[in-house]
Amino acid sequence: MHVLVVGTVALDSIETPFGAVDRALGGSATYIAMAARYVSRPVGVVAVVGGDFPAAYLETLRACDLDLEGVTVEPAGKTFAWGGRYHYDLNDRETCFTHLNVLERFEPVVPVAFREGGVVCLGNLDPGIQAQVLEQVRSPALVLCDTMNFWIEHTPEALRALLRRIDVLIVNDAEARELAGEPNLVKAARVIRDMGPRILVIKKGEHGALLFYDEVVFSAPAYPLEDIQDPTGAGDAFMGGFAGYVARCGRVDEDTLRRAVVFGSAMASFTVERFGPAGLLGLSGEAIARRLEAFRTLAHIPFDPAQVVP
Amino acid sequence: MHVLVVGTVALDSIETPFGAVDRALGGSATYIAMAARYVSRPVGVVAVVGGDFPAAYLETLRACDLDLEGVTVEPAGKTFAWGGRYHYDLNDRETCFTHLNVLERFEPVVPVAFREGGVVCLGNLDPGIQAQVLEQVRSPALVLCDTMNFWIEHTPEALRALLRRIDVLIVNDAEARELAGEPNLVKAARVIRDMGPRILVIKKGEHGALLFYDEVVFSAPAYPLEDIQDPTGAGDAFMGGFAGYVARCGRVDEDTLRRAVVFGSAMASFTVERFGPAGLLGLSGEAIARRLEAFRTLAHIPFDPAQVVP
Repeated sequence: MHVLVVGTVALDSIETPFGAVDRALGGSATYIAMAARYVSRPVGVVAVVGGDFPAAYLETLRACDLDLEGVTVEPAGKTFAWGGRYHYDLNDRETCFTHLNVLERFEPVVPVAFREGGVVCLGNLDPGIQAQVLEQVRSPALVLCDTMNFWIEHTPEALRALLRRIDVLIVNDAEARELAGEPNLVKAARVIRDMGPRILVIKKGEHGALLFYDEVVFSAPAYPLEDIQDPTGAGDAFMGGFAGYVARCGRVDEDTLRRAVVFGSAMASFTVERFGPAGLLGLSGEAIARRLEAFRTLAHIPFDPAQVVP
Repeated sequence: MHVLVVGTVALDSIETPFGAVDRALGGSATYIAMAARYVSRPVGVVAVVGGDFPAAYLETLRACDLDLEGVTVEPAGKTFAWGGRYHYDLNDRETCFTHLNVLERFEPVVPVAFREGGVVCLGNLDPGIQAQVLEQVRSPALVLCDTMNFWIEHTPEALRALLRRIDVLIVNDAEARELAGEPNLVKAARVIRDMGPRILVIKKGEHGALLFYDEVVFSAPAYPLEDIQDPTGAGDAFMGGFAGYVARCGRVDEDTLRRAVVFGSAMASFTVERFGPAGLLGLSGEAIARRLEAFRTLAHIPFDPAQVVP
């Protein structure tokens, strides 16, 4: 099944205690699509870049076998640029600058080949733009959506309207608490699912992720990494991996969703091992299978035939 | 196999957004012992209380079938008293007062019946006192130790000396980072295990716990609770459950340790559902078995026979 991704394609300037990159290939759509294509194709990208966007980066995206028909190049405009800095513990990031540039007048156009069915990933963007994409797609199999504190605070009505039309919301724990106005994540999950999405994934960074589906709660661990180079894009890679896995299976049931969370977590773990999206380039099927098995071992609770009753 | 617990027996005054208690039964030894006895007996407690310690609390401890021979009552002294306040998100706690009282001249005496073998739990205390207990026990099967930032900062040498003599260190993530001087938990775990303990458990509160043993890393989820009344004692209940489970099995291997972490996590989850140690009173074997099974479901990653290779 195809995957349609809308989001940003950006030029990222990132500093971490382990290095720095300037105007590297980045953006939510980049990470989502690069992760999704490992498990389901075709993957179509809807985004906008400026005339300054390096041809080599377009080549990188094409080499990942992504369908770029939906990527508009505005020759007179400048590409969305983001600058961020991570400190020693890598948990908090500081945004140094955000230049929206061509993103300010982004009018997404979904290519004809992606206008029916498929899995739709609405990467973090103005909820109005996310809705515009949704309006161009008939009978999607599953609609996933990401958002952030900025939209929760500044466009609450547009976000609420969008939430009624999506199937899966993927947010981090702080965003879930803010959206629900509730610090307890289990209660927050109930509040958010009452807003529309029947499936909720709460990402917790180094602490893993929680899936809420029907009466099921699934807690996935994060892969314990000694060397995290750059956390940028981990959440987007998670979404791409999750979406791609569901698209590949072509069904939405408990086991598929649990595995999709793990596949997304694996993609996130590969992402943070390198700067920018480099960790998502050239992964072998064997490396992915090994990482997935490592997640199963990491989380394995052996059954106790005696159960433990005193 | 018996379990020996040294720690505090305290009078706790606790405020949370959901209620308050004044001079309730508390202390690390109380929670550790109350959790451990569900799975292994006898459980002996070594602690000190003052003349103000209510007879009813001694009765509560006795009713839990704990061996109190090692609990000294100093009629002229006052019991260790702690006051704490939790805010709305329950993650951070504020200490309102700490009156050491009889704890200032605590000379632990291990009862004869607990001086050989068994599982030894060194609850959070001055590392010097923890060492005094250890000196009174011959050939313990396993020695577990808890500590906190205060001892890491103020008695680093005594703590380092103690770490060389224990098998299992159980600390929270902030304490692990501080002890190792390293923000990455995987690296921190290596540094700490080089200090002595061959087994390390890092508690992460609402995010579960990590076990490091040989080359194994096990990530246990926290039980998702909608109603957390009072987080006090959760970490101690974890240690007690963990210790009791190992004592019951009488062996230390990977599967036993994984299950011990889950048993400890289950005890912590019961603890936080009520104020003080009330959540650890009168649990049925069936309720415990149900909770353990819920942990397995929560963490279950279904095997994908196809593995996911594009």
